[in-house]
Parts: sequence; structure tokens; C-alpha cells
Amino acid sequence: MPVQWAGLAPPLLVDLRRDGGQPLRAQLERGLRDAIRSGRLPVGERLPSSRELARQLGLSRGLVQECYGQLTAEGYLTGVVGSGTRVAAGTAAVAPPEPAPTTPATPAPRIDFASGVPDLSAFPREDWVWALREACRSVAVADLDYGDPRGDPRLREVLAGYTGRVRAAVTDRDRVVVCSGFAQGAALALQTLARAGYDRIALENPGNGDPAQSVSSRAALRIGRSLHHVPVDEEGLDVDALAASGARVVVVTPAHQSPTGVVLSAERRHALVAWARDTDGFVIEDDYDSEFRYDRDPVGVLQGLAPERVFTIGTVSKSLAPTIRVGWVLTPPAFADALAEEKRLADRGTPGLDQVALALLVESGRFDRHLRRMRARYARRRAALVDALARHAPAVALTGLAAGFHAVAHLPRGVDEQHVVAEAARRGVGLYGMSAFRVDGATTPAQLVLGFGNLSDHAVAEGIATVADLLAP
Amino acid sequence: MPVQWAGLAPPLLVDLRRDGGQPLRAQLERGLRDAIRSGRLPVGERLPSSRELARQLGLSRGLVQECYGQLTAEGYLTGVVGSGTRVAAGTAAVAPPEPAPTTPATPAPRIDFASGVPDLSAFPREDWVWALREACRSVAVADLDYGDPRGDPRLREVLAGYTGRVRAAVTDRDRVVVCSGFAQGAALALQTLARAGYDRIALENPGNGDPAQSVSSRAALRIGRSLHHVPVDEEGLDVDALAASGARVVVVTPAHQSPTGVVLSAERRHALVAWARDTDGFVIEDDYDSEFRYDRDPVGVLQGLAPERVFTIGTVSKSLAPTIRVGWVLTPPAFADALAEEKRLADRGTPGLDQVALALLVESGRFDRHLRRMRARYARRRAALVDALARHAPAVALTGLAAGFHAVAHLPRGVDEQHVVAEAARRGVGLYGMSAFRVDGATTPAQLVLGFGNLSDHAVAEGIATVADLLAP
Repeated sequence: MPVQWAGLAPPLLVDLRRDGGQPLRAQLERGLRDAIRSGRLPVGERLPSSRELARQLGLSRGLVQECYGQLTAEGYLTGVVGSGTRVAAGTAAVAPPEPAPTTPATPAPRIDFASGVPDLSAFPREDWVWALREACRSVAVADLDYGDPRGDPRLREVLAGYTGRVRAAVTDRDRVVVCSGFAQGAALALQTLARAGYDRIALENPGNGDPAQSVSSRAALRIGRSLHHVPVDEEGLDVDALAASGARVVVVTPAHQSPTGVVLSAERRHALVAWARDTDGFVIEDDYDSEFRYDRDPVGVLQGLAPERVFTIGTVSKSLAPTIRVGWVLTPPAFADALAEEKRLADRGTPGLDQVALALLVESGRFDRHLRRMRARYARRRAALVDALARHAPAVALTGLAAGFHAVAHLPRGVDEQHVVAEAARRGVGLYGMSAFRVDGATTPAQLVLGFGNLSDHAVAEGIATVADLLAP
Repeated sequence: MPVQWAGLAPPLLVDLRRDGGQPLRAQLERGLRDAIRSGRLPVGERLPSSRELARQLGLSRGLVQECYGQLTAEGYLTGVVGSGTRVAAGTAAVAPPEPAPTTPATPAPRIDFASGVPDLSAFPREDWVWALREACRSVAVADLDYGDPRGDPRLREVLAGYTGRVRAAVTDRDRVVVCSGFAQGAALALQTLARAGYDRIALENPGNGDPAQSVSSRAALRIGRSLHHVPVDEEGLDVDALAASGARVVVVTPAHQSPTGVVLSAERRHALVAWARDTDGFVIEDDYDSEFRYDRDPVGVLQGLAPERVFTIGTVSKSLAPTIRVGWVLTPPAFADALAEEKRLADRGTPGLDQVALALLVESGRFDRHLRRMRARYARRRAALVDALARHAPAVALTGLAAGFHAVAHLPRGVDEQHVVAEAARRGVGLYGMSAFRVDGATTPAQLVLGFGNLSDHAVAEGIATVADLLAP
């Protein structure tokens, strides 16, 4: 409903408050802007002279003039000599955006066996605050600028040492590119390879599930010319099937396959490296939770066998927490510069203080100490899961337990995966069927992917007890 | 040179140190791995039995067996019943990467008038440490997980309020997507639009200079179907030229054109909005240094006039420091979901603690206080630049000073831009010609882009005095 200045008192329009909360000029500006945007002051409407408006509102004329000047510069008003100040064309009826519809949230499960989430309650807050404070205080002034897009040189040095020491990687500072976690690292590597002509991409199956949903699959679909899904068996990726697919790039999880938990066998490691060398192919190694291995030392990265053919991506998403967005790519020498350029184009580099903080955490020994603590904690929790299943659901076999913090429960014959998941949800327990990780969504063989990272030992036991009857043959 | 186990004593190969610095098993593993990688232990070579090697090295047999097992799992060794343990195929001669050639660094100028860099020495370290510590301590455990890819809800709420209050933007929490600065924000917006069919992209000229170098231009070149360069005059972007270009998307810097410093005039604001509405086009508004305006309040964002047609990108790169990689995109309602999905695919979200810290900084009033302090500081420095030029080089006209912390010096007729830049460099003063910002690299009209953000007032004066003779007609 347009306002008639002649008929409506301006105070009704702009509603100035004189309680000192906000400067009057800011209030007047906002009031006029809102009136124009809402269409209450229509295009072409002539405003009172600054003298007149000042009188009506009890303001100084200078203040009103400043305000008119500001709104004219911003394009809301237009001043024509002899014609006064009018509402400018093209400003009308900018409705404030509708609030987005809120989808009714499904209640979160009371006990959630979601995989891929570490124990968030064990995030070393005090260590991280210490490292950030040290980083903030010690960083050179010049290092507050945009830095090397590959990342902070000190962190790259530390990561080259760490991945060499703990993961048996072969790299050096100049082949490490710091990124913001696996999703970005994979996108950078895939993009780098695609631009070099390697654009037929293979993913593991089971793996990310529906290609239309998962981050990795969607990124691969966009970047690649073709997307292939290669089966995983009890030795890991089926390399013969990979070779038959025609793909030139494959994303794999050798240390602890996601989600089956299988460790890529020595034979398959050789076959995969031979495939890469023979077909001029490349491997993107997702080394996401390898720090946590229970039966012996973590198996070294595949990259150590063929550093010229393997991009290895590591992250602190599992070892610290996903909210710390720091990861790294160990890059084959021939692609180090190209991948650094992809990083520069993506975001000009990962936050600098987080990088220095991580370097300090590793150098100080706090990172290793945290990992040792977490390994012991996850080992206890893993034992709690094994015990609970043995006690309450002895017909369920458990595999994939060598590393990480998820395992696969094989449901007895005749038990329907979808029914178990749905009924467990009704009881407040979050269970996830293997079907969600299969490309075709197949519900057989009936399996559950049980994440136990972010549950207390007690919750693991209680959760299994709560759904035990559903898991019986 | 292959090792003959029969002939060479294993201690010479693996060089165990018994000073307690590292576990013997780790040393043995590393020694064998290195020997295999370097080719000293060739493919197919048979290793001594674990009993024999243990005897020779004075280790327990179990330790050697564990070590063989580990290296077999990793693919370096292969064990065949009856044939013993051998070096596996495909492992040989992985040379450690050559160290990257170090390019001889050109000495940094003693006084550097580079633009786009804020006063790094004024970064509020203590405030930021305070905010990070509060964030680390107060964040809910569940918020340490991957969050909403659009960003922390509290920060989005704060940014919607802040951009409404300070920048006269029209938005709400659900239309704000947190990103890692302008480079990522622009890539996300361009990608979102390109996927909707808006893939003819225009950039300002002067602007980023050589399209093969600048981040924005390279990103636009990759994402767009065509790239157009639209001239900027003393009123800002030439909207008629934009319309003639056929572009459907344009990236502009209305508050303070980069690099000319021109503020987009009211008429051009209207014309640009009309262009967007009439041609079904979109504007990406780079609102990079608008907080620092000297002659009056900052001009509100263009987005306020046409929130359904304008993506506005803000960042703390200029207000805090580039190393803090936090920015935001105010998204037209119709594209909010699509842009959030681009962000999810790019990196699953910006670091959470930095987001909470920024929200706390704004809410606590520390951010505004810092901006006020910096505005006064830059105003002094700007005055120092004006004074120094008036005193030492009165023939040089200065424009683009209304906001930000760079200005344009117009060189007198007959003065060669390239000569000035080169000679200044020899004197230790970094000057930058406008030619570097022009698409065609044209060196006329001869102008310098003078950044004064990251120099002391004294250095500004000294720098100008040092090169004054070069700037005389």
C-alpha cells in the first residue's frame, strides 16, 4: 500500500526510537530503505524536502541531507535539480525472502551406529587450544598473508616426516599439498588427472552408495568422462574387474576398505600397482582411518610401493575431528605443480593458523599421544561390540575389525536388512544397512555397517541388546 | 648394486642402532623397505629365514617374523611355502623424488606498495585467540562433526544481521553460505550459475589482468563457456558495453572498484540492475574492502537493490587477514540450495571453530571495534600518501581514495610506467603499473596502483620520497 507523504505523517513510516539504542541517522536510512524495498514508497514518489522532513521528524536538516545523499549513492533515491528527491526506478517491491521451509526433522537415534564419525567427545580441546594459541602468537606477520597455496612449509615438512614414519610413504615437502580433507583432496586429484586426460574414473563398490548422493561420487561424476564401479571382495578391490572396466583412475581405501573393513591383500596391492604401471593408470588412495589398527602396526600406504602412480590423501577428520578441516595429498612428482594450481584456484589455500597448529601438535608429541590414547579407547569399544554381539546375537558374524572404528555385521539367513533398520529406528537405535553403500542398493547379502567410534562402550552394549531379537535367525 | 645376502652381512644393510632412540623392529622394517625401494634388495631376492636373520642381527625370531609379516602385508615381500620369503615383484627401484628445483627468489622490495594486502601487523591476535579459545571450549560435542555445508547456523545468523546492518543487504540465515573467501565464493557462484545455463561470464577491465594468471579469471575461464572483459570508466563498469557483450553473468566490485578505486555511480547501479532484470542476467558482487570508507558511510551493497539477481561475496581477508579463510556468499533465494550443494562437493564445509570464533568476535563487539581502529589507521595512512605525493610529486593526480587501502596514481604525460616500476624496484620500492591489471597489458594511460594497507605511515612517506624524481614530468 503506497504511502502518501502528503497524507501520512512520516513518523508512522520510519518509526524513530530515541532511546539511544541506535543513531537516528541509521534508523532513518534503514526506515526509508525498508519502505522503498517493500513498495510502501513507490517508484517515482517524491520525498519531502530535507528541510520539511527534518521539521516533521524533529531532526537536523544536515542529518536528513546526509541520509538522502547516502541513499542516492546506493541507488534507492534519485535527485533531479528542480524536481526534488524521488524514489528511483528499479527499487520497488523487493520482497524479503520467504523463510525457507523447515523440513520436519526426524528425531536423531538415541544410540547411533553411524560409521565414519570418530569419538567427538575425545577431541583434545585443550591441546588444540594450546596449539592455536601458540600458532597465533608465534606466526610471523608476513605469514598472515595469503601463503603458498600448497600449504605452510613447516606443516608440509612435518607431514612428509609423519607420513614417512607412520605410514611408510615416500615423499618430501614439495610433493605434499595441504587441503581441507578427503573431499577436497580427491576433487583436486581427480581434476588434476582429468586435465591431463585421465578422466575415466573407478570407485569401489560397496563404497559410497548412490552416486547421486555421495560427495565422492558426485564429484567424480562431474569431473570424469565416465564412472565405473568395481566390486570389492574379501581381499579388497577386484583388480581384474578394474582392468576390464577401462578406467584409468581408481579411488581405493587399502588400509581399511570403506565400508567393508577389508584390508587390501598383498597380492591385490601388487596387482593394483602393476595395473597402474601397465595401463598408465593412477590410484587415489584414501588413507582415512589407518592410524587405528589393532592386531599389529598399521599397514603402510600403497603409495610407498609406487609413489609415481599413487596420490595418497590423509586427513585429521578421523584422528582429531571433522570440524578441523585439514588434510593432505601426497602427490606423484609429475603432478605436484598441477595439483598445487588446482588448490590455488579452489580457495587460495587452507587456513594458515590451523596448519601451524597441526604442525605444532605433531612436533610436540601431543598428536602421537592422542592417537595412542584413542587407539586404546577404540580397542575397548571394539571389544565391547564383539562381546555384545557374542552375548546377545551369536548368529551374527563380524568382519572388518582389523582397523578403524566400524565393522560389518553379517545377518543370519532369513533376516531382512530393511526390516532390522526400520524396527531399530523405532526403538531409537540407528542402524545402517550395507544396501546404502552399494551402487545398486541391493539388500542382499543382508549386512549392517556398525560404526562404534562415537558411542560410549556402554551405549554399544545397550544398543546391541536393544536390537538383539531382530538379529536372530 | 644388488645385495647378496650370502655375501654381505645383514648388519651392513639395515644398520640397527641400539641406543634406544627407536624400536628395533621399526628400524628393521624401515631398513628392509628402504633396501627394497632403492633396488639394493632386488625383486625375487630370497631373504634369510627369520631364524637365521634373527641370529645374525641378534634379535628375537618373533620380532623378525613380525617384521616379515608386516612387509608382506604391505606388498614388499612375498612368502611362498617351501620357497621362503622373497622380495615381491613391482617393488624395485622406487627412487626417492628429486628435490624440486628452487627458483632463485627475487629480493622482496624494502617498501612494497602491493595492493590487496591489509595491515597484517594490526591483525588482532589476542582477540582472535580469545575467540578461538571460547569457540573450542563452548562448542557442543555434536558440532565437532561435519556440519551443515552452508556453515554454522549461528555464524550465518550473525552474518545475515551484520550484512543487513553494515552493508544494507537483504538476506536471512538460510541464504547465507559460509565459504573460505572470495576465490571460493566466486567459484561456487559461477559454478552454480553455469549449471543453470548462465555460462557467459564478464569481468571488469582493468581488473584481474592476465586471464592466464589471476585466480578469478582462470576460474571463470574454466567454468564459463565464454569470457568477456568490460571496460571500467570513472563511474565504474560500463553497463552498455556489458549489455553489448552478450554476457549473462558479471563479476563487479561496486563499493571500490579493483583496482581503479572508482565507486559505482547511482546511475550505473540502476543500469546494472535493469540489465540483470531485462536480460535474465546475474551479478556477482565482490564486496572486498567496503568496511573502510573515509568520506561517509560505506555505500550499501548492490544486492540490496536486487537480492534475487545479485550474489554478494564478503570476506575477512581484508578486515582481519587473508590467513583466516572465512568468507560468505549472500545468495539469491532461487540458488541457495544449489550453491550449498556446490560447497558440499567442494570441501564439505568451512572449518567449524573458525566460524564460531568469527561469530563470537562479531557478537562481542570486538569485530566492530577492530574495524573502527583500522578505519582510523588507514585514514591516517591515506593522508600520509596524499601528503607525500603533494610534497614530492605534485604532478601526480590521485584517484580512487574514497574507500579501501589502495589508490591510483596518474603519471604525468611523458612518464613511462614500465620505467618507473623497474627503476623503483632497483631502489627497493615495489610499485605496480596499471598495465598488470589490464587484460591487454596496455601501458597507457600510465598509472600506478598504490596499495598502502600493509605499510607504516613512515614507509609510505619514505617510499614516495625515494621514487619522487621518477614521477616528475
